[in-house]
Amino acid sequence: MSQETGLALDKHELQAFLDEVFPQVKNEFVVEHVEEMYVELRTPIRDKHLRPGGTVSGPTMFALCDVCVYAAVLAMIGREALTVTTSVSLDFMRKPAADRDLIGKCRLLKLGKVLAVGDVLLYSEGDDAPVARSTMTYAIPPKR
Amino acid sequence: MSQETGLALDKHELQAFLDEVFPQVKNEFVVEHVEEMYVELRTPIRDKHLRPGGTVSGPTMFALCDVCVYAAVLAMIGREALTVTTSVSLDFMRKPAADRDLIGKCRLLKLGKVLAVGDVLLYSEGDDAPVARSTMTYAIPPKR
Amino acid sequence: MSQETGLALDKHELQAFLDEVFPQVKNEFVVEHVEEMYVELRTPIRDKHLRPGGTVSGPTMFALCDVCVYAAVLAMIGREALTVTTSVSLDFMRKPAADRDLIGKCRLLKLGKVLAVGDVLLYSEGDDAPVARSTMTYAIPPKR
Amino acid sequence: MSQETGLALDKHELQAFLDEVFPQVKNEFVVEHVEEMYVELRTPIRDKHLRPGGTVSGPTMFALCDVCVYAAVLAMIGREALTVTTSVSLDFMRKPAADRDLIGKCRLLKLGKVLAVGDVLLYSEGDDAPVARSTMTYAIPPKR
Repeated sequence: MSQETGLALDKHELQAFLDEVFPQVKNEFVVEHVEEMYVELRTPIRDKHLRPGGTVSGPTMFALCDVCVYAAVLAMIGREALTVTTSVSLDFMRKPAADRDLIGKCRLLKLGKVLAVGDVLLYSEGDDAPVARSTMTYAIPPKR
Repeated sequence: MSQETGLALDKHELQAFLDEVFPQVKNEFVVEHVEEMYVELRTPIRDKHLRPGGTVSGPTMFALCDVCVYAAVLAMIGREALTVTTSVSLDFMRKPAADRDLIGKCRLLKLGKVLAVGDVLLYSEGDDAPVARSTMTYAIPPKR
Repeated sequence: MSQETGLALDKHELQAFLDEVFPQVKNEFVVEHVEEMYVELRTPIRDKHLRPGGTVSGPTMFALCDVCVYAAVLAMIGREALTVTTSVSLDFMRKPAADRDLIGKCRLLKLGKVLAVGDVLLYSEGDDAPVARSTMTYAIPPKR
Repeated sequence: MSQETGLALDKHELQAFLDEVFPQVKNEFVVEHVEEMYVELRTPIRDKHLRPGGTVSGPTMFALCDVCVYAAVLAMIGREALTVTTSVSLDFMRKPAADRDLIGKCRLLKLGKVLAVGDVLLYSEGDDAPVARSTMTYAIPPKR
């Protein structure tokens, strides 16, 4: 862990780890910013993420929220691929723009030994009003 | 609406409508059973749904829950593509099997004029213990 | 644990334990039925539970859901007062009757070593349509 | 509505309305601060709010979250007693202090014609780490 930052993984290490554990969805989750208990990620929106009516699909938004919290936890505790989502709440509030990337901003509210809780706001890039919000609880496996 | 069943769409009409509004994900959601306030859908699991460690991805489970509630609402009210998810809760409870299809069983708990609420249990086909549960609220657009 | 039933606490033991750990709210939670992974509890509705417009307050409904899941877990694992709620989802679907008791029916969907998940449906006694639903996750302390 | 602030109810009007619609729980919810799309409320903690082990009860925390979002909505739209909670998520993260008041800080994330969504963080007064978080959706009745 870097003594200067309190982070176990910096931005480049975090991106490398996400690409390694989620090879099927490489390029879906771009780490934009990492600090203690906080990350920002981007999903570049392409045709495959869209739904009729010119909006981004629900699973695309769910996935970005989920990876944001996962990334925020790993940035603090290091490479623990087995960390798993247990509980999710998710509110869809506005229609995301079809022609702009999706930005996720996640703050960890709790980082315990067993459970971590993170809050995420999702934005269409350039808009101030969030399109969705989510809270996710992650279970952290015991140290072996 | 069929007078015998109280359903606005039967199994085949519901499948046709889902394929029409979600052309990007055709063959992802197979309607297995429809009755009043209840549906069962299947997602045939293929490589693209998997994650390392031999499990089904979170977005795949989210998507099946979401489409289950949407389908249960449409079966009752008919073709209303604009019906949208507003609030979601989702609990992941067990690791889904990588080599079995995912089955979603959804019961509508409320079908109001403005809001509908549905509960979903997800199973790896052939298992009695659910891998996940979800509740989704849908907003129904006013009649034009 | 009773060999006949798989229960760690029967109906009377469970009632005695709830009255012991929640002395402030004695008589608020009456155990009606206990079986493996399932309980039913009653809150006798009195003036103090009501809100203007002739309905039962949200905190009264929350409390019954919460105690239902707690009771369902304890019935299976025995007297573990330190078991705590971590995540809650709750949907209010219909207005409860002011002149009838509130009945909670809880099924445990998961009883793991660390986390338990229970689903609750709340009814105004005598009605078939649930007034609310809830899912609660409980963290179970490690064995000392 | 005040032209200077965009608020339909100021701090004193909001307090008066809460005391009027919730006479049973007068003095439970003290409006500390109101601004556009944001409120802070206090629950003065007394013996009746406590549970064994020296902590604040779940229903006390639920009630403060719920009234925070209600107050934030009413501050913007005015006296609409019929505004009702529909969906709730709530995460308990730390044990609240038994000897300090509970502070709720609520930001409205959406204020639509039909639905409003608010995020709440709860604190034991003087602590930086939140004891709980909640998101609540409120349904706003149509204008008569």
